[in-house]
Amino acid sequence: MNIANELANIVGKKYVLTKYEEIVPYVKDASYIEGEKPIAVVIPGNVFEVSKVLKLCYENDVPVYVRGGGTSLTGSSVPEGGIVMSMLRFDKILEVNIKDRYVIAEAGVRVGELNSYLEKYGYMYPPDPASDIAATIGGSINTNAGGVRGAKYGATKEWVLGLEVVLPDGTITQFGEKTLKRSEGYDLTALMIGSEGTLGVVTKATLKIAPLPEREAMFLAFYDSYKRFGDVISTLNERGLIPLTAEFLDEVSMNAVKSYGIPYPDNAKALLIIITSEMSDQVLKAIKETSPIELRTIKDKKEMDDTLKLRKGLYSSLLLERETPEQRVIIGDIVVPPSKISETIEEIYNAAKSIGLKIAVFGHIGDGNVHVNIFAGPNDFDKAKELLLETGMIAVKHEGCVSAEHGIGLEKKELLLKEFAYRNNQINLELMKKIKNVFDPKNILNRGKLIE
Amino acid sequence: MNIANELANIVGKKYVLTKYEEIVPYVKDASYIEGEKPIAVVIPGNVFEVSKVLKLCYENDVPVYVRGGGTSLTGSSVPEGGIVMSMLRFDKILEVNIKDRYVIAEAGVRVGELNSYLEKYGYMYPPDPASDIAATIGGSINTNAGGVRGAKYGATKEWVLGLEVVLPDGTITQFGEKTLKRSEGYDLTALMIGSEGTLGVVTKATLKIAPLPEREAMFLAFYDSYKRFGDVISTLNERGLIPLTAEFLDEVSMNAVKSYGIPYPDNAKALLIIITSEMSDQVLKAIKETSPIELRTIKDKKEMDDTLKLRKGLYSSLLLERETPEQRVIIGDIVVPPSKISETIEEIYNAAKSIGLKIAVFGHIGDGNVHVNIFAGPNDFDKAKELLLETGMIAVKHEGCVSAEHGIGLEKKELLLKEFAYRNNQINLELMKKIKNVFDPKNILNRGKLIE
Repeated sequence: MNIANELANIVGKKYVLTKYEEIVPYVKDASYIEGEKPIAVVIPGNVFEVSKVLKLCYENDVPVYVRGGGTSLTGSSVPEGGIVMSMLRFDKILEVNIKDRYVIAEAGVRVGELNSYLEKYGYMYPPDPASDIAATIGGSINTNAGGVRGAKYGATKEWVLGLEVVLPDGTITQFGEKTLKRSEGYDLTALMIGSEGTLGVVTKATLKIAPLPEREAMFLAFYDSYKRFGDVISTLNERGLIPLTAEFLDEVSMNAVKSYGIPYPDNAKALLIIITSEMSDQVLKAIKETSPIELRTIKDKKEMDDTLKLRKGLYSSLLLERETPEQRVIIGDIVVPPSKISETIEEIYNAAKSIGLKIAVFGHIGDGNVHVNIFAGPNDFDKAKELLLETGMIAVKHEGCVSAEHGIGLEKKELLLKEFAYRNNQINLELMKKIKNVFDPKNILNRGKLIE
Repeated sequence: MNIANELANIVGKKYVLTKYEEIVPYVKDASYIEGEKPIAVVIPGNVFEVSKVLKLCYENDVPVYVRGGGTSLTGSSVPEGGIVMSMLRFDKILEVNIKDRYVIAEAGVRVGELNSYLEKYGYMYPPDPASDIAATIGGSINTNAGGVRGAKYGATKEWVLGLEVVLPDGTITQFGEKTLKRSEGYDLTALMIGSEGTLGVVTKATLKIAPLPEREAMFLAFYDSYKRFGDVISTLNERGLIPLTAEFLDEVSMNAVKSYGIPYPDNAKALLIIITSEMSDQVLKAIKETSPIELRTIKDKKEMDDTLKLRKGLYSSLLLERETPEQRVIIGDIVVPPSKISETIEEIYNAAKSIGLKIAVFGHIGDGNVHVNIFAGPNDFDKAKELLLETGMIAVKHEGCVSAEHGIGLEKKELLLKEFAYRNNQINLELMKKIKNVFDPKNILNRGKLIE
C-alpha cells in the first residue's frame, strides 16, 4: 500500500506533501529537538477527512503526529517517521456567543487571532502563550498553555468547555458542551487538556471567554537582589490584591530588551512588571515596601502594550545575548509556589555556575512559573541537559513541578519520571499509560512522547 | 472471614458500626433513594487506615461506599450492601497558605467550615453548595459542586490543585501539587473531580483560594413573566458585567421564603437576585432595561447575608409548600446556556402541567443552572420520574446537560445515557467504563453508580 496515494484519495493530492523540501520544515518544532522525516504531511480540510485519515493509519499501524503551530518547546510536535497531520486548514472561528460567554473555534485558529477577534466585543480568551501569533487553539489545549494573564485567570484548563475530538480509530465524538458547568461523570474534556496529542485529535473547541479587564496601571520595579522581588507576590496575596499580570526578568533578560526601550539602573539584578486592574494605590504601596531601587509607573495604554510586547518577545530577544552565533537558547519551564521563587532562582544560578553555563531567567511570577534559558554551544548539550534536569529537581524540592505550561514532549520524559520517583508516585505513570491504552490501544498518536 | 472483625483490627472496634440503629442512617442520603443495609460502617482515622481497609475489601471483593456529608441529591452515596466508609474523622484543615493562595484540607472538612476559617484571612474557597453546612470537601470534589458563587468563580473543577488519593487496591498516591498550574501529562486530578467516588478515595485536597470580593450591592428584581428575567444575564454579559451571584426564584419559591422577609408583588412570577462587586450603577441600568415590575437595592451587608441565607435554605423552605405531609420534594439539576433559561423553564412548566405535577423552579441563572423541584406524593413517583427525564431532555435540546452540579448517582444513569444517545456520543460512556476499569478493575468503589 502506498500511504501517500491513500491519503490523497481522502484529502486530495494538493493536500498531501511528500517532496523533501516540503516535508523538511515539519521535522522540527520550536525546540532544539530534531525528529525523523515523515512519509508524508497530510492537511485535512474537515473533521470527516481527519476521521478517514486516522482510520486509515489506525488500520495500517502508521504513527500520526498532529501538528498545530509547531511552537512546541519540548519536541512534542516533532515526528519520528509516520505521517504528520497539519491542522492548518482548521482556521475558522465558528461562533462567538457573548450572551452565553463562549466562542467556538477550530483547532488551527491562532490564539492571538482569536483574541484580536474577540477584542471588538470587549472580550478575551485568557490563555495567551508568548507565541500566540503562531500557537493554535489545538496546540495550546494539548499543552495546557498559560501566559502572562495566568496570575489572575489561570491556565487553559480553566477555559475549555467542550471539544470535538476524533479518536485514533477515526470515531468522531464530542466531550463537554457549551454550558458553563456540568457534573456528568469523568471529565473527558479535562483529560484532553495537556495530553499532547496522544489521546485524540482536537478539531474544534468551545471556550469560555471573559470580559477584557480595564488596565489601571503598570508598575516597573527594579531590585538589586533576587531576594526582595520574590516577596512582592506574597505581600500582594496576603492583602487580597491579585494583579492581572506579574512578570519578572533577570539581568541578562533586562539587557536583552534594554535597547528596545526599557533602560535599567546599573546595579539592577531583577525587574518586576506588574499590571493592575484595580486598587493600584494599594499595589503601589505593597511594592514600595519591598524596597525596589527604582519604581516606574505607566498609565498610558500604548506604553503598557509596548512594554508587554517586549516581554512577550523576550525569548527571541535573548538570541542577541548569545556569545557566539552557534549557541542555542534552550528554554526551561518549571513552576513553584510563588513564595519559593527567590530561593529557587538562587539555587538555579548556583547550579548553572557550577556546571559552567550562562543562563537568563524570566517568568510569570504571579503563578510561580520560572523560565530558565540556557545558552548552549554545540559542545554544551550534555551540560545543558544536566542543568535542565537539575533545574527541574530544584523545582520539585521546592514543592514545584518540572513543567508548568510547555508540557513534557520528548525533552522532559526523564524529568517527569524523576519527579514521580521523588514523590513516590510512580503509580501515576502507570495510570497514565493505561489511560493512553484506553484511548489509543495501537499507539498511533504522537508515539514516543510524554509518558512512553 | 468476619469483615467487621477484620475492620476492627484496622481502625479499632469503636470505629466499626454494625448495630441496626447505628447503620440505618447510612442507608439513605439527601435524595429520596433508599439503598441496602451495609454489613458495617467503618470510620478510619488516617490515610493508612483507609489504605488497609481498601486493601482488605479489594482482596475480598467487598464493595465500598465512601461517604462524606451524605448530602447527595442523586443517591450517589447510598450503599447497596458492602461496607460504608465514613470520612467523618478526616476533619482537619492542615495548612492555610495565603502567600501562595492555597489551603490543604482533609476530605471530611465541611465546605462551610473551611470558608468560615478562611474568612479571617479575607479569603474564600469559591465553590459553595447550598448544603455547605454539611457537605464535605471530599463530597463536593466528587460531584464537581457549584453554588451561588458560580456565576463569577466557576465550579469545583476550577479550584482543585492537588489530591491525596487512595486507589481501590490500597495504593496511596498524590495527584497534582501545590502549584497554581502545571502541564505534566494527563490531568488525574481533574479526572477525580465529578467521579462520584468510583475511581479512588480522596483523603486530602490542596485547594486554590481567592480573596473575598467586596460586595457593593444586591438587587432584587421582580418580573411578571419568565421571559424578561432571562434577558438580564445576556444583557450583562454583552456589557462585560459578570455579577458575583445571579439567582432566580419562581412564584412557588418566592412564596416559600415570603414569610421570612422577602415580600413580593401580587403579580410577580419571578425574582432575580443579583450581587455585584463593581460597576453596580451599570448593572442597575441593565436590569432596569429588562422592565422589572419592582426593583429593590440592598447595600447593607447584613441584609445581603440574610437574603442570601434565604436563598441557600430555599430547598428546605419548599417543604412548607407541600400540599400533604406525605409529599416529597424531588430536586432536579439541569444546566443550559443562560440565554436559553426562559424558554427552558417555559417548556418545563408545560411538561409538568401535562404530567400533572406541581413544581417549583429556582437556580443559579448566572451559569445557566436550573433546579426543578417536583412535589410528589407516594403515588406520584412514576410521574415524577417521567418529568425528571423530560426535564433533562428539554435541557439537552437547548444545548444543555442533564446534570449541572449534583452528579448522576443512581437517579440520572438513564438520563445520562439518553443525553449521550441524543448527541450520538455513546462512545463517551465506553471510554468512561474503560477508565473505571483502569482505576478499579474489581469494581469495589461505589458499585452500581454513575456509569454502570
